[in-house]
Amino acid sequence: MNDIFLRACRGEKVEYTPVWLMRQAGRYLPEYQAVRAHVDFLTLCKNPKLAAAVTLQPVDILGVDAAILFSDILIPLEPMGMRLEFSDKEGPLLSEPVRSKSAAEKLIIPDVEEDLPFVFDTIRVLRKELEHKVPLIGFSGAPFTLGTYIIEGGTSRNFLHTKKLMFQNSSVFGYVMEKITDTVTSYLAAQIKAGAQAVQIFDTWAGILSPADYKKFALPYAKKAISELRRAGVPIIYFVNNCAGLLKEIRQSGADVTGVDWRIDIGEAVKRLGKKCIVQGNLDPCALFLPREKLEERVKDILWKGETARGHIFNLGHGVLPQTPVENVTALVEAVHTYGRAK
Amino acid sequence: MNDIFLRACRGEKVEYTPVWLMRQAGRYLPEYQAVRAHVDFLTLCKNPKLAAAVTLQPVDILGVDAAILFSDILIPLEPMGMRLEFSDKEGPLLSEPVRSKSAAEKLIIPDVEEDLPFVFDTIRVLRKELEHKVPLIGFSGAPFTLGTYIIEGGTSRNFLHTKKLMFQNSSVFGYVMEKITDTVTSYLAAQIKAGAQAVQIFDTWAGILSPADYKKFALPYAKKAISELRRAGVPIIYFVNNCAGLLKEIRQSGADVTGVDWRIDIGEAVKRLGKKCIVQGNLDPCALFLPREKLEERVKDILWKGETARGHIFNLGHGVLPQTPVENVTALVEAVHTYGRAK
Repeated sequence: MNDIFLRACRGEKVEYTPVWLMRQAGRYLPEYQAVRAHVDFLTLCKNPKLAAAVTLQPVDILGVDAAILFSDILIPLEPMGMRLEFSDKEGPLLSEPVRSKSAAEKLIIPDVEEDLPFVFDTIRVLRKELEHKVPLIGFSGAPFTLGTYIIEGGTSRNFLHTKKLMFQNSSVFGYVMEKITDTVTSYLAAQIKAGAQAVQIFDTWAGILSPADYKKFALPYAKKAISELRRAGVPIIYFVNNCAGLLKEIRQSGADVTGVDWRIDIGEAVKRLGKKCIVQGNLDPCALFLPREKLEERVKDILWKGETARGHIFNLGHGVLPQTPVENVTALVEAVHTYGRAK
Repeated sequence: MNDIFLRACRGEKVEYTPVWLMRQAGRYLPEYQAVRAHVDFLTLCKNPKLAAAVTLQPVDILGVDAAILFSDILIPLEPMGMRLEFSDKEGPLLSEPVRSKSAAEKLIIPDVEEDLPFVFDTIRVLRKELEHKVPLIGFSGAPFTLGTYIIEGGTSRNFLHTKKLMFQNSSVFGYVMEKITDTVTSYLAAQIKAGAQAVQIFDTWAGILSPADYKKFALPYAKKAISELRRAGVPIIYFVNNCAGLLKEIRQSGADVTGVDWRIDIGEAVKRLGKKCIVQGNLDPCALFLPREKLEERVKDILWKGETARGHIFNLGHGVLPQTPVENVTALVEAVHTYGRAK
């Protein structure tokens, strides 16, 4: 098996910089579209055979160094008692957002293995299929990010409901966050038990917080989950979107690898995370619309700067966009493999 | 006249930290709502008597140290040939977005004094009304931010049209940006000529760029406008929203004052901008939902850290939200005036 990704996560010597891409399985791939023509998104997430099939597509098509479970960050919210829908226009919608003590009391800390069997079944199918290929990454939304969905009822512009709860009723906010943190922890532990060889925690919305608020209302919960997952013995990646102002705090997360979005120079990010960090990122997903030559220049620049860290895993700074030409994604993976340095 | 704001912009000695707030005239004020009950947003912007009246409201109600012209960053786009509408749900909409050479050729560099007389009339009315009160700030969208509206046709999630034009047709992108830059420059020069005593350039969307792209596709145009406005002799404030990863580049803008959003610690921002900087910001607008005591703690923290710069003008990190309780905004201004330090 190609274990270069896992070795890079552990800060071990690697022959070249490994690469995988957030949303590498997704709408930009015609093979994915073909599957989605017959099933909606949530049905696909819950069907182990189909979810495994789309997980494998980019491994075969792109030649990436890791597979990531096809699923959604919001999946653990359903067994917590939230009703989840995906609208094509407005994105995820959760009915009855939680903004009061009584609503918070109704939130369930689920038995994830019982309630989300399809996730662990998908992982088991995938581990067999990937046996001689690449490692499998499991994932979950981070506690704060899941909290925003539970409190807002979907995505938001200003996240005012979340911040109002934080600021005006911090005990209810903390109570919600503790329930989510327990859920995330057992969810990721069960993914690891089923066979996930690394996990990524996506803090998609923590970047809306000031550093002081991040430190108080988001970081402690991510940190707690990470510390409890530590004993499972697999690498933990923590990705905060829009992280540029938060890196001093993120540095305390305890994760093995820190994912970085594209709005900061990766060399600067390494400086703020400390040279002992292992960093993942950080090409702008829109850079996949550059002409090949210019795309390669950017890849080289990120590889060069990534070298200042103890380890570097190449990735985008956010997910592949649906409009992206597949050949450019292939070219990206090739370029990383061509120019990625031994370490 | 209370000229403490202007002196702070110039790095001169001040008795306390001056404060004004982005969107201090707006929907959170019942007095503003009363005016808007009779006219739509764009009509209000174009009526000098009414626009002046709402500009003055926060000066009287809050006691801020500066007034800012009531208008919209997109106003200069209409005489450039774009049709502008404000939809309550989707925000600003511009028909026929510019994404080709032929469309770019049709963009007009307007005679702003002829085409936007209401702006300069409003400024003249305001200067009389403000004579013994506070200085008047004029403003415009920054070239890049206006470019995104022209190219996207409104706001956007990923700004893919803008980045595609940047990446795939940089000469057309540059051509559009030059026309916008000329427009912004003459628009702000005419505001100054009419009586604006300082100007703020809002780069609301530059924070979607990687530092390398910001340096190439946004900064040069802002810099050019700033350098040409220099000779007008009034302080120039440059505000980039979501600036945390871009401060090393923003430092080169040539502006007198740098506005900073709330997603970075203002002390960290000063470190990256250099201690000779004059900084403006940076309270999270949602912090106006905190209980008074906690709001005051945050104010003190920002004032304390702002002191590390050569000068500090207190502001929010973004505009006042419509849902904000007026009494909290008043409390904020009072707190800044109570705890703001002599310098």
